[in-house]
Amino acid sequence: MADAYQTRLWGGRFKEDEDAWMERFNGDNCATAWLIEPDVTGSLAHVEMQVKCGMLTLQEGQTLKEGLNSILADYKAGALPYTNEYEDVHTFVELNLIRRVGEVGKKLHTARSRNDQVNTDMKLFVRQTGRQVAGQLARFCVTLTETAQRNPWIMPGYTHLQRAQVVTMKHYLLAYQEMLDRDRRRIVNALSLLDQCPLGCGALAGTTHPIDRTYTAKQLGFSSACNNFLDGVSDRDYVIEMTGAYALLMMHLSRMAEELILWSSAEFGFITLDDRYTTGSSIMPQKKNADGAELVRGRTGHVYGNLITLLTMMKGLPLAYNKDMQEDKEAYYSSWEIVRDSLEGMERMVATMQPHPEAMAAAVKKGFLNATEVADYLVKKGMPFRDAHGLVGRMVLYCEEQGKAIEDLTDAELAEFSPLLEPDVRQAIDYNAILHMGNKQEML
Amino acid sequence: MADAYQTRLWGGRFKEDEDAWMERFNGDNCATAWLIEPDVTGSLAHVEMQVKCGMLTLQEGQTLKEGLNSILADYKAGALPYTNEYEDVHTFVELNLIRRVGEVGKKLHTARSRNDQVNTDMKLFVRQTGRQVAGQLARFCVTLTETAQRNPWIMPGYTHLQRAQVVTMKHYLLAYQEMLDRDRRRIVNALSLLDQCPLGCGALAGTTHPIDRTYTAKQLGFSSACNNFLDGVSDRDYVIEMTGAYALLMMHLSRMAEELILWSSAEFGFITLDDRYTTGSSIMPQKKNADGAELVRGRTGHVYGNLITLLTMMKGLPLAYNKDMQEDKEAYYSSWEIVRDSLEGMERMVATMQPHPEAMAAAVKKGFLNATEVADYLVKKGMPFRDAHGLVGRMVLYCEEQGKAIEDLTDAELAEFSPLLEPDVRQAIDYNAILHMGNKQEML
Amino acid sequence: MADAYQTRLWGGRFKEDEDAWMERFNGDNCATAWLIEPDVTGSLAHVEMQVKCGMLTLQEGQTLKEGLNSILADYKAGALPYTNEYEDVHTFVELNLIRRVGEVGKKLHTARSRNDQVNTDMKLFVRQTGRQVAGQLARFCVTLTETAQRNPWIMPGYTHLQRAQVVTMKHYLLAYQEMLDRDRRRIVNALSLLDQCPLGCGALAGTTHPIDRTYTAKQLGFSSACNNFLDGVSDRDYVIEMTGAYALLMMHLSRMAEELILWSSAEFGFITLDDRYTTGSSIMPQKKNADGAELVRGRTGHVYGNLITLLTMMKGLPLAYNKDMQEDKEAYYSSWEIVRDSLEGMERMVATMQPHPEAMAAAVKKGFLNATEVADYLVKKGMPFRDAHGLVGRMVLYCEEQGKAIEDLTDAELAEFSPLLEPDVRQAIDYNAILHMGNKQEML
Amino acid sequence: MADAYQTRLWGGRFKEDEDAWMERFNGDNCATAWLIEPDVTGSLAHVEMQVKCGMLTLQEGQTLKEGLNSILADYKAGALPYTNEYEDVHTFVELNLIRRVGEVGKKLHTARSRNDQVNTDMKLFVRQTGRQVAGQLARFCVTLTETAQRNPWIMPGYTHLQRAQVVTMKHYLLAYQEMLDRDRRRIVNALSLLDQCPLGCGALAGTTHPIDRTYTAKQLGFSSACNNFLDGVSDRDYVIEMTGAYALLMMHLSRMAEELILWSSAEFGFITLDDRYTTGSSIMPQKKNADGAELVRGRTGHVYGNLITLLTMMKGLPLAYNKDMQEDKEAYYSSWEIVRDSLEGMERMVATMQPHPEAMAAAVKKGFLNATEVADYLVKKGMPFRDAHGLVGRMVLYCEEQGKAIEDLTDAELAEFSPLLEPDVRQAIDYNAILHMGNKQEML
Repeated sequence: MADAYQTRLWGGRFKEDEDAWMERFNGDNCATAWLIEPDVTGSLAHVEMQVKCGMLTLQEGQTLKEGLNSILADYKAGALPYTNEYEDVHTFVELNLIRRVGEVGKKLHTARSRNDQVNTDMKLFVRQTGRQVAGQLARFCVTLTETAQRNPWIMPGYTHLQRAQVVTMKHYLLAYQEMLDRDRRRIVNALSLLDQCPLGCGALAGTTHPIDRTYTAKQLGFSSACNNFLDGVSDRDYVIEMTGAYALLMMHLSRMAEELILWSSAEFGFITLDDRYTTGSSIMPQKKNADGAELVRGRTGHVYGNLITLLTMMKGLPLAYNKDMQEDKEAYYSSWEIVRDSLEGMERMVATMQPHPEAMAAAVKKGFLNATEVADYLVKKGMPFRDAHGLVGRMVLYCEEQGKAIEDLTDAELAEFSPLLEPDVRQAIDYNAILHMGNKQEML
Repeated sequence: MADAYQTRLWGGRFKEDEDAWMERFNGDNCATAWLIEPDVTGSLAHVEMQVKCGMLTLQEGQTLKEGLNSILADYKAGALPYTNEYEDVHTFVELNLIRRVGEVGKKLHTARSRNDQVNTDMKLFVRQTGRQVAGQLARFCVTLTETAQRNPWIMPGYTHLQRAQVVTMKHYLLAYQEMLDRDRRRIVNALSLLDQCPLGCGALAGTTHPIDRTYTAKQLGFSSACNNFLDGVSDRDYVIEMTGAYALLMMHLSRMAEELILWSSAEFGFITLDDRYTTGSSIMPQKKNADGAELVRGRTGHVYGNLITLLTMMKGLPLAYNKDMQEDKEAYYSSWEIVRDSLEGMERMVATMQPHPEAMAAAVKKGFLNATEVADYLVKKGMPFRDAHGLVGRMVLYCEEQGKAIEDLTDAELAEFSPLLEPDVRQAIDYNAILHMGNKQEML
Repeated sequence: MADAYQTRLWGGRFKEDEDAWMERFNGDNCATAWLIEPDVTGSLAHVEMQVKCGMLTLQEGQTLKEGLNSILADYKAGALPYTNEYEDVHTFVELNLIRRVGEVGKKLHTARSRNDQVNTDMKLFVRQTGRQVAGQLARFCVTLTETAQRNPWIMPGYTHLQRAQVVTMKHYLLAYQEMLDRDRRRIVNALSLLDQCPLGCGALAGTTHPIDRTYTAKQLGFSSACNNFLDGVSDRDYVIEMTGAYALLMMHLSRMAEELILWSSAEFGFITLDDRYTTGSSIMPQKKNADGAELVRGRTGHVYGNLITLLTMMKGLPLAYNKDMQEDKEAYYSSWEIVRDSLEGMERMVATMQPHPEAMAAAVKKGFLNATEVADYLVKKGMPFRDAHGLVGRMVLYCEEQGKAIEDLTDAELAEFSPLLEPDVRQAIDYNAILHMGNKQEML
Repeated sequence: MADAYQTRLWGGRFKEDEDAWMERFNGDNCATAWLIEPDVTGSLAHVEMQVKCGMLTLQEGQTLKEGLNSILADYKAGALPYTNEYEDVHTFVELNLIRRVGEVGKKLHTARSRNDQVNTDMKLFVRQTGRQVAGQLARFCVTLTETAQRNPWIMPGYTHLQRAQVVTMKHYLLAYQEMLDRDRRRIVNALSLLDQCPLGCGALAGTTHPIDRTYTAKQLGFSSACNNFLDGVSDRDYVIEMTGAYALLMMHLSRMAEELILWSSAEFGFITLDDRYTTGSSIMPQKKNADGAELVRGRTGHVYGNLITLLTMMKGLPLAYNKDMQEDKEAYYSSWEIVRDSLEGMERMVATMQPHPEAMAAAVKKGFLNATEVADYLVKKGMPFRDAHGLVGRMVLYCEEQGKAIEDLTDAELAEFSPLLEPDVRQAIDYNAILHMGNKQEML
């Protein structure tokens, strides 16, 4: 079939056309249009190298570059749509190039294979998006720091979701700043490991053409070309590692989302989320749901799933390229989209939430959050820690039965538990005082 | 903003509009258009019930049903596109209904919530697609049986990818028939567990309206309504269980794909795949790659990933509905699409592959595939199995060093190993004879 | 090496001993002692069949059975320990049998391979433990029903962790009863799919011995023997399907655990967990942590992980047996252990928790949980639902600003919002009255 | 119960003992004995700091250090077994310390919580094992390089498991060297991100004691103390990131394992694995199975599963410590064990395998592996690449039908395809010559 021949790069060998099933199953169904720009970028560098190495005249190189640039420009302007007519983005670019510049367009693919080409395209895309995410993380860290500064209030710190000790909202928010800063450093590390360019590895065994692949690599901003051809075309580590970093990042956001959901519940009441990031109910008029945070939490599962998709895909594959590897694209792209949007949304939610300091202070007072300090007071008076711990445990039980806080006990009640509990204990268990003891002042 | 108010069902409570981020993050971005048909189906049954229970007049019911049917017809005809203007498919249907039939359209949502509605839609879709897959599996089993009948040739059976014993290609293909038949039964079992209708559970706590939800359930082909409201709106078991069945199914197809890839390699040479299911190389003119099978194998990872997406999404969610659950749709839909296409393609590949019986027979002869039978021969002559096993192990070592098959050893060589090895051993280790012994004849 | 020869079943062919690494890596390191009992069970049935088919004399059969039974008895009594001396449990049983009964012990393995043997052992174990779990689930459902009956209190129902509508604790607990009942039925379905016995499939291609594998299958309680030899030895579907059912089950328990943790927090205060299922802090004397529930929630991840382990392990493996499959054992066993213990613990926690009905009632009153009913009241007076929803949304906003519940509004305030809001609205929004309207009474 | 009190660190508050279920479910069942050494290491540094800060006298510090060292020494010597009597390793160490040194032993836990303690222990263990794995990888890379140097043979390179172009075994092996070197660098990156010490973060909120946690951090070889208390006790990033690096590493080993299995099959016949890393069959005397490689491939699934276990465990957990986090230990430990053993085994298998250069050379000749070079020859003569690709495709089809290699075609046959195909093409498609063209010589 003439038409199929025109839109496939490898028609010569085949007696029968593939059938419609294969076309659908093998094609990308226009889902990878985002690879068009990196594909043109990689092709431009390849042309530069072809000219430098004498494989193209200066004039031919100029013609090809103009053709490539016009294709990208027209695609971006909507004048040249990417449709199912094309098997993939490489075919889209190359066929349109030939249509525009004629026979010389067929020289573009000299000394290149789709195997090294597609891996270069993906690396360029992962590098670009990874850098963007690192930038978002850096900005979010600033937002967290600024929000922390604005929120010095005391609040209960939790372990096991039980009120544990008094902390500050500032310190709480900075905990997430730490997590996101590690995420940023992890992504920078991942970027440092994808710094070799696959172009010039050919299909799997280099090329007989006199190329200079170090030149291409430098053109594209890589520090070197891949050391090994077989590895160069079959390595997808960078896709998996970056998706793994995204999975960890989403795990952090899922924790932050969980807290925003808890804090904005009626039971906690620590914050009110901005109306813009909540939605209502089609049936219950009073509802104000933290949908934004719930979606972030829910989509975490999708990034975990994508990581498994990628790891499973590569397991046990012999060298070099296998078609299975084509599945890396959707898994990476959807992970990145989720991360990009989740970071943007969570940053807005954090920046715009309204804290309720009085509700947090009330929760501190009802939580025996100075019990540890009673024990520490006793230790300082000479009681071994284990004994002090046991004694305060019994005090808490007594207080619960009496409906009192520890600071509400009378001097007599205190003395009943231990003669060491003298009136100056009240100072030792005052919440503001506590936050100035030991390294706790780092939370202020 | 007037326009946003018109396209949101819950606008009353909010002081500020959500921002563009929320719109993009919360919306389905037109990815769930496939839910429009089940949404209309469910709505039609709801209207029937509303009429039966006196919540709508016969005339009102008629108006709503005509409106709903016209929306579906126009959507299918392309006259009413589903665009980003709508938050989700429910909004698409309800708003267009109001536009078409006026005020009475607002009564459709009485005694219903989006929570019970969306779960009904999904159940209808999972039921329909699950039944389709079960049908595909039944047909594939027939194809495997027919292909098996056409291929009675002997071939090597493998364990550890080492030639082990002689089998028939027929028996080999029927092994996959067994796997796919279990898949079919597993899906039928999953369908039996999703047989309760969520409509009428309301948002989470039923409704004060006098409805008859058993009537709705029957209308929609369910055997009953959900027993529990909270479970009815927050149950996603059926999505996970069906995706789990798909994951197992894809695991089976990945094994079949692996074998087609191995068998069509130059090294095995057992089959030639039809040109329609292979593709070429953009650079190596001689290549004929089993891309179809590789893609099936690669996409297995995607279904595994989707299963993790779903399980992770639901982990630790308190009752009842949480927005996280919205993420079930893409994970299920893409799993189903992969399964549907993979089954179709693998069935075609199996049905059209060309076997090479002579290559398989040659492989049998070079594999010492009658070594077990030599041991069995010795056992029948009175030697304990363990001793016979050891002796034949030494014979194989000798044969390898001599470059001989066991049947090529002279009588003298045989007797050297054991006087029990008399000339009639040759009959006992003839491949055709072997296949008529014991229960091996079941492979014929 | 004489000693290695004695403890390996396949020593004849090899020139060099495997090294210590291989021994450690290949052995089970005593982690699968739980397979000894099913191995003996399967061997006893095999002996019965050997006798029936004339492969053993009655006397030989008797000797073997006594030997096998004595090995199991001694193992259970601690007199015959399973140590690293043995490659696996099959070797443990067979070598000890030979030590005890002499040469005749070597006949046990006739017409059997470790491939069909180990798969039979695993099926017996999965069947036994699957039945146990189904029994635990049935009992837990009874416990939930009984606990539900004892707890008719009203409480807030939640969506998005926001108070949504009034429900009863009884109905809440019965939601979990529904989930666990589906789990039970899912396991019963899985058991119905593992009802074929692999024994007699040999290594992969049946056997030349005149066996009756249907007889063996019936002896072991299977309804038939496997239809296909290659599938019979390489099928691990039942392990994956059961683990998948366990993953869903743990997902349910993780949700229940999450609620117990939330409810026993100071913020909710709906229940107190029994001291036996909570632990304290080594440093904070007042803490009482829901550790039992947290561990259930945390171990959910382990069962998810095991499911991925199994699916990954089987992906892309050619027929028939491959050593990779050995990895099914730990993944199944640890999943089952977690499920068994989690079910036991959660049942105890639910049965012994102390509810606080007054705290739940207070939460209902503060949550505008009758807002939907105000809208429904307006609908019954003729206002379209959408309009009523909007109006009540504005009422809630007003109440929040005023610090009032809806029922606290004066008649004048009510009339301000709509003349339709007449004094009889108070009856319509009374919580006890609400629970008697429509199908909500199903929650009583 | 006196006994329970003695073996629990937090008994004071509780009215009832936990029951046996809780003890079993909550305990580590002796599975984490490997934490004893890091626990003592961390405790020794804590004592040093306590002395420095005046919380202990020099004498007390000396007593505690001697006690701690004697516990570790006795544990290692088998004189002090770690049994189920102890809730966890921290309890084991602390209780034995008190037994040995008396009251002063109770001071060890001052200014420390189990939350910061256990996270320090884990970090020490992950750091130590991560460094070991990095060392193994470095050594394996050397082995691969040496093995590559010894194996300069030509062999077929594959894409899609179809013979594609000629490569060298040396270059093939160096592809894996690249992968493992990335793994090593990835682990070094992960180590750089775990370089903060949690000790001194207390339970979640620091401590009122006058500690110097930077001093402790330095003592333990960390570059600083954790910046944030809440993050310090609840961060498990380093466990997940290291396990993620192990998952990628195992993916690489699974690919290498797959190739060893393929290459040592009868069909490929490229190598013979050393007897030490293969095993036999209990029933088929001729079998020699690549069990070592299969186990590596199979256990890859286990590490993937562990990664999901860890990610799932942490998803959606609010700050700070939750008991779920306890599940990190087994998942990490088993991952590390698998990685350690798999690396050791694969290195041995690669170092000891016997290559069969003649078999590889024969496979090259039968694979049209010079088809690309025919096309390149035509390109150099002026034919556009696309046209040359089509023409050579037709040549290959002709050759297959005639049973010939391209180099077997007569001059007349060649000229029939194109007058450009002159006799000097034979030089251009000679396999040794090819490997000296373009950048292909990098493979020599």
